[in-house]
Amino acid sequence: MKIVVINRLLKETHKEQIRKAAAVAGGSVLFVGSEEDIPSGWEDCEVIYGFGMKNAGKNKDLKWLSVPSAGVDYLMKPGVFANEDCLVTNSSGAYGVTIAEHIIAVSLMMMRRLDYSYRESLKGNWSSPVLQKSLKDCRILVLGTGDIGCSFARRARAFEPECIIGVSRSGMCEDPAFDAVKKVSELDLLLPSADLLVMSLPDTPETRDILNRERISLLPYGAFVVNVGRGSAIDEDALCESLENGKLGGAALDVFKTEPLPPDSRLWKTKNLLITPHVAGNLTLEHTLNVNVDMFCKNLINYSKGLPLNNLIDKSKGY
Amino acid sequence: MKIVVINRLLKETHKEQIRKAAAVAGGSVLFVGSEEDIPSGWEDCEVIYGFGMKNAGKNKDLKWLSVPSAGVDYLMKPGVFANEDCLVTNSSGAYGVTIAEHIIAVSLMMMRRLDYSYRESLKGNWSSPVLQKSLKDCRILVLGTGDIGCSFARRARAFEPECIIGVSRSGMCEDPAFDAVKKVSELDLLLPSADLLVMSLPDTPETRDILNRERISLLPYGAFVVNVGRGSAIDEDALCESLENGKLGGAALDVFKTEPLPPDSRLWKTKNLLITPHVAGNLTLEHTLNVNVDMFCKNLINYSKGLPLNNLIDKSKGY
Repeated sequence: MKIVVINRLLKETHKEQIRKAAAVAGGSVLFVGSEEDIPSGWEDCEVIYGFGMKNAGKNKDLKWLSVPSAGVDYLMKPGVFANEDCLVTNSSGAYGVTIAEHIIAVSLMMMRRLDYSYRESLKGNWSSPVLQKSLKDCRILVLGTGDIGCSFARRARAFEPECIIGVSRSGMCEDPAFDAVKKVSELDLLLPSADLLVMSLPDTPETRDILNRERISLLPYGAFVVNVGRGSAIDEDALCESLENGKLGGAALDVFKTEPLPPDSRLWKTKNLLITPHVAGNLTLEHTLNVNVDMFCKNLINYSKGLPLNNLIDKSKGY
Repeated sequence: MKIVVINRLLKETHKEQIRKAAAVAGGSVLFVGSEEDIPSGWEDCEVIYGFGMKNAGKNKDLKWLSVPSAGVDYLMKPGVFANEDCLVTNSSGAYGVTIAEHIIAVSLMMMRRLDYSYRESLKGNWSSPVLQKSLKDCRILVLGTGDIGCSFARRARAFEPECIIGVSRSGMCEDPAFDAVKKVSELDLLLPSADLLVMSLPDTPETRDILNRERISLLPYGAFVVNVGRGSAIDEDALCESLENGKLGGAALDVFKTEPLPPDSRLWKTKNLLITPHVAGNLTLEHTLNVNVDMFCKNLINYSKGLPLNNLIDKSKGY
């Protein structure tokens, strides 16, 4: 079994861990920094751990693609796999910690107007105080109660919010960090009481433009929006308008309809909009990379034994 | 009993609350926006709630000055009070929530390099990923285990740090958010294991330059420093050098030796230094103002009954 691992951030300890798992699984491993570096003799590999989309499009022998990302929307289009039966797993579960920290960071930056203080400090200005908001007594609505939503809610709880309500497709989530979890069909009833709306949703037909113009108008005056899932979930033009006209207190977007965000996008210049370049779930955070590698190694043993894979994607659902 | 309240941020609900407490206490209240607005007939007031230093320097009838700040160092110099027996209370306890949020916000901003992302976004740049650090598994050292240190530790706990060690004069603190609380005499032994050093100390002879050049050198490579107490606690030149030469990963200062920070200060231009203009404990956060007013009203009843005042300052200690 030929296993190709594509990731230039791996340390020697990660490689050693993967080599050991591969030995148990009866496979041999090749490490490359990018897909272009796969040498001849390895293009027909059975397993790829990494972003191996070009190989997947040509390699009929590929049986399992394990991607280090949580989102897999880019793999759901027809024609991506030369072998239509190729299994796909994602790394959902590796990003809870880092993305939760991102959500807390940008929420507080917006609510405490640290963007303003920081911008002024770059100009050497000791700026005047501005009105601040707080996570204390805040009503938080979390769209998406997976690993990321739960990890965020557990951290947000420590800030003594008034409530943390989760919203999921099923309306169910065991995590006690939520005061309640509701079905997505109740979303319109929940938005008017959301001081902070956190969105962590995969890209599926149901989530596209889920925060449309009408729903933005349901949010209370001065509400804050954070999106760390997929950019497709928000009507970006409607969001910009509601920031410009002061309806929303602020928004922090890490994901966008088009990435990288084009230089001429109106979003760059929109008032009270905090833009980060899809870094909330960056593998440059060592903890995330460690968990990611752990997950692949466990799955590799499962794969070699014919056991069910963790994080297996249902291509009909898209997640 | 004439009571002068100096605070331009008070809402009508706060004023009503103070009027009621004053009625119970048998006093009459005057609300002014600044000390300059105190009309004749009120300069000989018995009680001031607010920053009433000029009146305190002339008014021999002033018996109690209740300041809305936590720090009172500016009141400890000789000659500040015309009546040397004037009682002083601070509002320690009102700032835990807001300053704890500030500490979490700036720590995550530094560790996740959101300052960099934000700065690039202002130029319309979709910047490349940078190395991120995390509160997860972080070793946190908290200098000062009062309301602010405890409120921070309780929030930081939710981020799953490796440990949170408090340092206080007595080495004692009941709050379970700390894994341990040590005496300040042990500081030099603790600094080498502090990935994040949070400083929340009053200005006293013992705390001045407590983080000096030698102690900065004891911190591990890449450590982060946050100061929300008083600027006097840090050797600012030594801090700048250790940021410039890459010894420290970052620092976030909300307080400075000289405030406002002079336009020609080298701090404005120092690498990886996040400057905020003494806004961590801003009264513009409604929760802080509510708690502050509550505390004064309770103390006013105590005062009128001859009961001991909460938050009474020991002028010999300076806090």
